[in-house]
Amino acid sequence: MATQTIDDLPTPALILDRAILRRNLKRMSERLRNAGVMLRPHLKTAKSVEIGRMAVEGHDGRITVSTLAEARYFADGGFKDILYGVGIIPAKLPAVTELRRRGVNLRVVTDNLAVAKAIAAAAKDGDTFSVFIEIDSGGGRAGLPYPALPGLLDIARVLHEAPGVDLAGVMTHAGHSYHQSTPDGIAGVAEQERLAIVTAAEKLRAAGIPCPIVSGGSTPTAMHSRDFTGITEMRPGVYVFNDLDQEYIGACGAGDIALSVLASVIGHYPHRNQLLVDAGALALSKDISAQEFQPKVGYGTIANPPAVGMAVIECSQEHGFVAADDPLPYGNLPVGARVRILPNHACITAAAYDRYYVVDSDLDGGKSVVDVYDRINGW
Amino acid sequence: MATQTIDDLPTPALILDRAILRRNLKRMSERLRNAGVMLRPHLKTAKSVEIGRMAVEGHDGRITVSTLAEARYFADGGFKDILYGVGIIPAKLPAVTELRRRGVNLRVVTDNLAVAKAIAAAAKDGDTFSVFIEIDSGGGRAGLPYPALPGLLDIARVLHEAPGVDLAGVMTHAGHSYHQSTPDGIAGVAEQERLAIVTAAEKLRAAGIPCPIVSGGSTPTAMHSRDFTGITEMRPGVYVFNDLDQEYIGACGAGDIALSVLASVIGHYPHRNQLLVDAGALALSKDISAQEFQPKVGYGTIANPPAVGMAVIECSQEHGFVAADDPLPYGNLPVGARVRILPNHACITAAAYDRYYVVDSDLDGGKSVVDVYDRINGW
Repeated sequence: MATQTIDDLPTPALILDRAILRRNLKRMSERLRNAGVMLRPHLKTAKSVEIGRMAVEGHDGRITVSTLAEARYFADGGFKDILYGVGIIPAKLPAVTELRRRGVNLRVVTDNLAVAKAIAAAAKDGDTFSVFIEIDSGGGRAGLPYPALPGLLDIARVLHEAPGVDLAGVMTHAGHSYHQSTPDGIAGVAEQERLAIVTAAEKLRAAGIPCPIVSGGSTPTAMHSRDFTGITEMRPGVYVFNDLDQEYIGACGAGDIALSVLASVIGHYPHRNQLLVDAGALALSKDISAQEFQPKVGYGTIANPPAVGMAVIECSQEHGFVAADDPLPYGNLPVGARVRILPNHACITAAAYDRYYVVDSDLDGGKSVVDVYDRINGW
Repeated sequence: MATQTIDDLPTPALILDRAILRRNLKRMSERLRNAGVMLRPHLKTAKSVEIGRMAVEGHDGRITVSTLAEARYFADGGFKDILYGVGIIPAKLPAVTELRRRGVNLRVVTDNLAVAKAIAAAAKDGDTFSVFIEIDSGGGRAGLPYPALPGLLDIARVLHEAPGVDLAGVMTHAGHSYHQSTPDGIAGVAEQERLAIVTAAEKLRAAGIPCPIVSGGSTPTAMHSRDFTGITEMRPGVYVFNDLDQEYIGACGAGDIALSVLASVIGHYPHRNQLLVDAGALALSKDISAQEFQPKVGYGTIANPPAVGMAVIECSQEHGFVAADDPLPYGNLPVGARVRILPNHACITAAAYDRYYVVDSDLDGGKSVVDVYDRINGW
């Protein structure tokens, strides 16, 4: 049987260019290693053991996940140091304990005193926990807001003093870095991020509480930070694939997007200079993050477009509406022709798929399917 | 073992209230039966054999699907008359043939002359096809635009004259009904929808080409149409669950939303009058359709909110940001407390889940999990 090519795949399908992936992984890994910072990649984007293994090469294998389903999946894949980066609740502690009993250091996160007390109470009969305190470095999502850091020492003392509980350190996610669009702007957020967690760590140490890990991270701040002093690890995620959002904020270049959605043209509508493809709201997601800096990006742009400005400008469930600045070249795009759509936000687009069809643009221009990687979706 | 209740479920989880589902199904089924119109429910919303079986009760079992994965799944579930409602392409015909050889009348849709010719060419050696011609009744998605209906007779002749091809009829989806917010406005779109397909059918018949099925449908037009003359079937989909979008456009009432996302409170942020839940962009989707008429709906509102105007106003991948007009009652919503979030757009929210946890509000207020229905996602 001949090698399968992307022309043989059913559409829509999720395509991963291994050559670009490897370059993205290498760039981040080397940048952080050169800075003396450990990489704990956030695998919520990739959700793939194969990609996770490649991502931690040259580091010590620590990773971040966003769901308990990911934690179980990566534990099954041999990962031993896993940070579950979404605020823990008492009802989820038994699932954490189950993995810890298997020898996996599944670490959890909180910013809440009642939860810290519940963790302390749950650590008994030999069951232990490893806990990070989350700091809000300005993104306004989870964490104790910096600079006030209200309740930091109370939470830390409960965890530090509880038998069987390891206060692993402090962590933050500088989500506001996604709303900057220049290296200087991102570097400014990176410095806020650093100050917030380093200050929190120093506050703990001044109170006699150890704080071994000081964990920051987002793809933009990891790429543009100018000073990692005091930070011990970074947790970028979307850098493995990149996307139009990362491109427009300047966290990657135009050739650094490893992920695309393969779609087929299913109809021609010359009276409105549009065509339809079989990738809509489910195949692309309705995430429009990248529109903050580039409104014309729609739900995704066409890779190597045969007309200027081709993008999916609207979606219904299984229909993507493709328009362009130029007249669409319908002759070059008959019904059945295939296009590749670059994702607006890779993490959310990828979540609709159970596998990656892997190609390699360094090998044969990305024509052959050289591998298939699975993904862990759901919770 | 005690009955499982929704308090035992991991979060986030997709909850389906069977009592509301049954009322929604009965309302639509009876409305169309009383109008003498056959119901071909669009199961792209439910993606569940159990729900599909309930939906066609009192009708003849015909259904609509949006993917080949759904077609295979419902065929395995015993459905025999299935319309694949997204424009077909030649590369997908072998998958259609595979199901047709198993005795399933999987029907396809096109609005394209080249595709019609490809179908005609593929119908040979005993393999047959059943084809609808798609009409654009004003929604501006797929279909030959009404009133010009360019190319209608050319496409119809190719299909009608091809041995082994059954020209099943004409179909449309009045997607623009979603942008109306009054019964009169929706009824106006419904009349456009009716005129477009009835005119197309009459044009075919005048040319001596049979057009047995005249297929319309969207939940709003099916609910508010005042005249079905000439229409033989309707294909509503989201009515099975309803959602905030359907509520705000007036296609259902506030008590008619059968679907919700069960989420846990994972953090308190009184300095900004917010809390976080463990249902974010993946668990709720980033669809904001309902914001067209109610911007404050966010990504979903809290069912039975303990504070006025509680809604998920922002999402990151696994975090939902909940805010309210009133001060949030943190004492009633400790970390670990559960809330149910009504979906902005049910079809897209449900697609993140592989199952429904079924409760019944008529039985015990919706406390016990009385059943689990699976779903078919992907392509």
